Amino acid sequence: MPTTNEFTVFGMTCGHCEMSVREEVQDIPGVTNIDVSHLTGTLVVTSKLDLESSAVTTAAAKAGYEAMPA
Amino acid sequence: MPTTNEFTVFGMTCGHCEMSVREEVQDIPGVTNIDVSHLTGTLVVTSKLDLESSAVTTAAAKAGYEAMPA
Repeated sequence: MPTTNEFTVFGMTCGHCEMSVREEVQDIPGVTNIDVSHLTGTLVVTSKLDLESSAVTTAAAKAGYEAMPA
Repeated sequence: MPTTNEFTVFGMTCGHCEMSVREEVQDIPGVTNIDVSHLTGTLVVTSKLDLESSAVTTAAAKAGYEAMPA
């Protein structure tokens, strides 16, 4: 059963930032949907597998942004 | 002899924006150097050929930004 987890991402300013976060998060195994907004600083990740928060925060860090569970 | 031309670019918010402008401007024939800053909104283009302003503003538009000679 898919689970959805929300995170807060700090420092995104535009669509390019959203895309860079999206590109890293989509590489996490099991992820089936990503909603990300620089306007609200939210990142919502849906996964068909158990999603570890650290996988998402690490992915965001790779893109250059600090993230934390919302 | 190289010429340097300065432009104002509107709407860049981060390094990704700078990169997208840079990628388009570097395709203009003759361009040898590009300085671009989202902090100041400036784009400085050095070219070994005569540089038409319209080539730069068109390149910026391709990247998604409005630009004008400074």
